[in-house]
Amino acid sequence: MNYQSLTPELIEQFRGICGADALMNADDPKAARYGRDQVSEKAYHHPPDLVVFPTTKEQVSQILELADRARIPVTPRGAGSGLSGGAVPACGGIVLSLERMNKILEIDPESLCAVVQPGVVTAALDRELEPYGLFFAGYPISEDFCHIGGNIAENAGGGRAVKYGVTGNYVTGLEIVIPGGEVLRLGGKRYKDVTGYDLISLIVGSEGTLAVVTEITLRLSPRPRHRRSLLTGFGRESEAIDTVSAIFRDTGIVPTSIEFMDAFCFTETAKSLRFDLPSEGSAAYMLYEVDGADPNDTERGIEKINDAVRGSSPMFSELLSDSRSEEVWKLRKRIPWMLKRITPHQSAEDISVPIGAIPGFVRRLRSIESDLGIHIPVFGHAGDGNLHAHPMAVGDEAEDRWAEIRKPVLTTLYEEALRLGGTISGEHGIGNKRREFMPLVSSPTELGLLKGIKGVFDPNAILNPAKIF
Amino acid sequence: MNYQSLTPELIEQFRGICGADALMNADDPKAARYGRDQVSEKAYHHPPDLVVFPTTKEQVSQILELADRARIPVTPRGAGSGLSGGAVPACGGIVLSLERMNKILEIDPESLCAVVQPGVVTAALDRELEPYGLFFAGYPISEDFCHIGGNIAENAGGGRAVKYGVTGNYVTGLEIVIPGGEVLRLGGKRYKDVTGYDLISLIVGSEGTLAVVTEITLRLSPRPRHRRSLLTGFGRESEAIDTVSAIFRDTGIVPTSIEFMDAFCFTETAKSLRFDLPSEGSAAYMLYEVDGADPNDTERGIEKINDAVRGSSPMFSELLSDSRSEEVWKLRKRIPWMLKRITPHQSAEDISVPIGAIPGFVRRLRSIESDLGIHIPVFGHAGDGNLHAHPMAVGDEAEDRWAEIRKPVLTTLYEEALRLGGTISGEHGIGNKRREFMPLVSSPTELGLLKGIKGVFDPNAILNPAKIF
Repeated sequence: MNYQSLTPELIEQFRGICGADALMNADDPKAARYGRDQVSEKAYHHPPDLVVFPTTKEQVSQILELADRARIPVTPRGAGSGLSGGAVPACGGIVLSLERMNKILEIDPESLCAVVQPGVVTAALDRELEPYGLFFAGYPISEDFCHIGGNIAENAGGGRAVKYGVTGNYVTGLEIVIPGGEVLRLGGKRYKDVTGYDLISLIVGSEGTLAVVTEITLRLSPRPRHRRSLLTGFGRESEAIDTVSAIFRDTGIVPTSIEFMDAFCFTETAKSLRFDLPSEGSAAYMLYEVDGADPNDTERGIEKINDAVRGSSPMFSELLSDSRSEEVWKLRKRIPWMLKRITPHQSAEDISVPIGAIPGFVRRLRSIESDLGIHIPVFGHAGDGNLHAHPMAVGDEAEDRWAEIRKPVLTTLYEEALRLGGTISGEHGIGNKRREFMPLVSSPTELGLLKGIKGVFDPNAILNPAKIF
Repeated sequence: MNYQSLTPELIEQFRGICGADALMNADDPKAARYGRDQVSEKAYHHPPDLVVFPTTKEQVSQILELADRARIPVTPRGAGSGLSGGAVPACGGIVLSLERMNKILEIDPESLCAVVQPGVVTAALDRELEPYGLFFAGYPISEDFCHIGGNIAENAGGGRAVKYGVTGNYVTGLEIVIPGGEVLRLGGKRYKDVTGYDLISLIVGSEGTLAVVTEITLRLSPRPRHRRSLLTGFGRESEAIDTVSAIFRDTGIVPTSIEFMDAFCFTETAKSLRFDLPSEGSAAYMLYEVDGADPNDTERGIEKINDAVRGSSPMFSELLSDSRSEEVWKLRKRIPWMLKRITPHQSAEDISVPIGAIPGFVRRLRSIESDLGIHIPVFGHAGDGNLHAHPMAVGDEAEDRWAEIRKPVLTTLYEEALRLGGTISGEHGIGNKRREFMPLVSSPTELGLLKGIKGVFDPNAILNPAKIF
């Protein structure tokens, strides 16, 4: 596309819209952090020419109107906690940070809804909801820092998606601004709505390429009052993974979480946190959780799961106390950070496969690992087939080695996922990081439809360019 | 649009694609039924020029390729059980009936998925799933005759949507044919997928205006092994409706169903079925249901609901035996048919409002009823705010009276729904019946986006024209 550069005159106009306090120039030392997200690889970083911090939808509208007219790329951004380079201004231009639009506008216990601005931290909403006995069930595992707007952009899943599904299942209303500056309100507090095409689901997961979300209405659920979890270790990874279908087949229970952790991820993170957790030399660990309204239900539920798991001859199985469960979840949440500290020469993947294909996929991962002589720690949401594999290069020549193997390793992983009926991303999105691989997943006709839809919303392609396709 | 008429030469070509047995001409006595759905009003019927019954995606592809080239409208059709005129060939042309594509292609208990053709009757899939201990949770209340393809077209909800949500929540894969004849496969058996825009959710609920669905992959859930229900009668409608928020607030339980029936709907249907059911002169009846994996859970659940309901001083409250529950559900399912028999001069509405707005909406319905001197029986899915109001004209001059009041009554109902944060359809769709009212709901900009998307899929507008907009 034919983008224009930001001139001092244009910057002046953006200052006029937002105010001087809501502008950050490219030479500001803090600007660099708006040029990256949680992707380690430098190839997917790009500095912004200007960062703006609007506080109202009117400002967002004026920013998009001016940027569209002047052909300046605009990259919307939440917490910057993404894992696909989605919030990085890959073509330069403006980063539109929504971090100051961080108000919880309304909690409506009668209609079981919350209305929030995009910059609200997911866990902050949760704290506000607790006294009402309600919760937002679609939250991802990065709840402590991710923004709800970012969850919308990526259709984030998480550790409880087995039972509760993903972000999009709970979005009943959106206020959006499209390039050109028009503000639209889609849906609302109603749960069911079949008037016209489902534009809300189209915006959810569109990675900020179609519109900027300025307000979100979320469906709330009764907060589970009780929760029980079980930590189990297995002698083989396949035994751990096989418990997933055993649980669905034998118990009639839909657990809240079924998390897989390989021996490396579990023991290294436990070490780094100085947790004294059982391991007994297991090759894989599983964390199962059930929740519900009644302690008898959850107790019976976790016991049934424990029974189903026994068929896989676990090396140990521990029903966790509340405090112990908190410790194990802390460990689980810590894994990506432990891995990140090892080397920047790695890729945090989130391949999604059918549940029945998980055992085959894990086996293939291990054979790819040994064929290519590469380390691939694996953990993640086994219960819904969404596993986090982190292929990485370590040692003296890690950088060169990674440059050499990155593309073949990812291509092999992705092709394997596709062969098993899976796809290349279950919750992190495409961004600029997986963009080159989209033709593996989508036919030219499908890509044509995606681009056609993009053109309907954003004919001048100013919104988050060089993402997805 | 500039549509062409079907010539004998074109009919010959369609015969060549499908075979002579798979064609029905306009003069066939059975063709009339392909010119209407379950909408009573004749204004929304329109005869087809030709009905085709393809059995393979290749035939569907060739039909769409030829029709697109020749500019012949094509209206896809399932069971014809819709309530918005969606499957009616409003501009003439071809009805593409999917009733012969009625195979269950695969049940995959490992990946908890079923792969089906669009013409499968919803209850037929359920019978096949029973031995596996699985079920498709998104089914609507018309399961005994509706087709899964039709459920997809309308994003059908139903009597269990409070807990399980609607059809779209369970669609993980689609095979579609777009005008021009290209076949695309979207998604698959994986549960999580954020690669590119969510085309599946865009097709679901698009009323056959974007593509013809030729194969569907559905996510399955553990079949609830136990179920308990409660029938309660109240002296006032408001008392009945108030129990919805009491249950969500006080019990922490998400019931499977919360169905409302006004006195007229309940007692007249009970009479027509010769059921001996309690009534004690109640003004409104509620049917609550919980389900689960364990009989103790469901027992405790329904007792908690019974406790919560007591705050509204019910006139009676009966925990139903299994056979009794079946009877009450039969009654509930029968209500629309009982109403339909009264007069063709009525409209089956399915307004959706926020849960907190249900009491206000029912009150307004009653004041509209008395202001306009019109009868509006009401029943439906109170638990998710989706109520079926059937305004009707009866008596000697019903036809003229209906012609006169139809539009003002619907406009008043819709405006009231919108004022309360609701919308004009929660599960029946827009079709040709509510099309004139779309500008009430959608701004010109939003309608422009919808039409833009339509143009991306169907540039010659041959698919199901004169629907939605």
